[in-house]
Amino acid sequence: MPRGRPEAVPDDGLTTRQRRNRPLLIVHTGEMKGKSTAAFGLALRGWNQGWPIAVFQFVKSARWKVGEENALLALGEVHERTGQGAPVEWHKMGAGWSWTRKHGTETDHAEAAREGWQEIRRRLAAERHTLYVLDEFTYPIGWGWLDVAEVVETLVNRPGHQHVVITGRRAAPELVEAADLVVEMTKVKHPMDTGAKGQKGIEW
Amino acid sequence: MPRGRPEAVPDDGLTTRQRRNRPLLIVHTGEMKGKSTAAFGLALRGWNQGWPIAVFQFVKSARWKVGEENALLALGEVHERTGQGAPVEWHKMGAGWSWTRKHGTETDHAEAAREGWQEIRRRLAAERHTLYVLDEFTYPIGWGWLDVAEVVETLVNRPGHQHVVITGRRAAPELVEAADLVVEMTKVKHPMDTGAKGQKGIEW
Repeated sequence: MPRGRPEAVPDDGLTTRQRRNRPLLIVHTGEMKGKSTAAFGLALRGWNQGWPIAVFQFVKSARWKVGEENALLALGEVHERTGQGAPVEWHKMGAGWSWTRKHGTETDHAEAAREGWQEIRRRLAAERHTLYVLDEFTYPIGWGWLDVAEVVETLVNRPGHQHVVITGRRAAPELVEAADLVVEMTKVKHPMDTGAKGQKGIEW
Repeated sequence: MPRGRPEAVPDDGLTTRQRRNRPLLIVHTGEMKGKSTAAFGLALRGWNQGWPIAVFQFVKSARWKVGEENALLALGEVHERTGQGAPVEWHKMGAGWSWTRKHGTETDHAEAAREGWQEIRRRLAAERHTLYVLDEFTYPIGWGWLDVAEVVETLVNRPGHQHVVITGRRAAPELVEAADLVVEMTKVKHPMDTGAKGQKGIEW
């Protein structure tokens, strides 16, 4: 993006500095690769700024981002060891969120998604992190497991200076409406079109 | 992306394994944020797979990605210290590529871009890295500093198992044609529409 060239001068009573540094609600949607990948790329920037980061993954196993998890957690360890960057937390639904200690059993996925969201609400209220990546969070909303109005209200009214990035296909219109920045990843061409399958390092 | 569901079965004489693991030429283009960010996110995955990574930035100063640079170089240091992941190199045009030692003078940007590309050609021939991020590489091509036919021929005929990700707006049609995977980042909504300016951690 070109920097410093706003297309309009707003009349919102904020100084340029306040406007520049306002916390953002970002949505990466669309049919194509790059939604989560770009969110984790943003986490690299945030880490370098010293922003405490938390990733919450809402879709289990097949979509887990093991490569990014290992790499971002390695950056969290760099912070612990040297003070560079920021702490990083990574939470995934699947066999139970780490903070609930309900592991190994076939949990109800809708219930697990709601537990994840409740924890995010608590953390937003406590201003615990500066960047939240809610990976594939559009799905539990789309499946009706979470109330989109309540999610949007919580996000819009979050206190302090907390950035939130939400990824996933088919973002709800209410979420797009509430977001500050929405990117759609669209397909021009993909190897699967010609019969190729996913490969490690590229797809996961 | 859904894994393992090709839309067509190809008739290319390759086994599924060969097809799965073929080296990819990837292009991230479009008007919106996320092109470089998603490329650096891919680098996280590659790093976790132990792929030696090199980033080459073709546009100077204002577009430099300092946050990602610091974070990816920190991951390279993790590799040096612990063996986890892979080595990471980061090269930028600007006041001269690190390997040319021509610093501090006002160099000809077209010449600098050509020097960068020549070095990439040498490294591809030597199979020096597994993942190359050619950041904002569409611009020197678009400005006519590099011959797109020669670039495409070199990339398509690169030896061994080397993935290449190219970012930037207005990717040349020849490059899109040659690529295995092309993602277009399109704008749905951006804070600059309402007068906001870029902010650290988000834009750089």
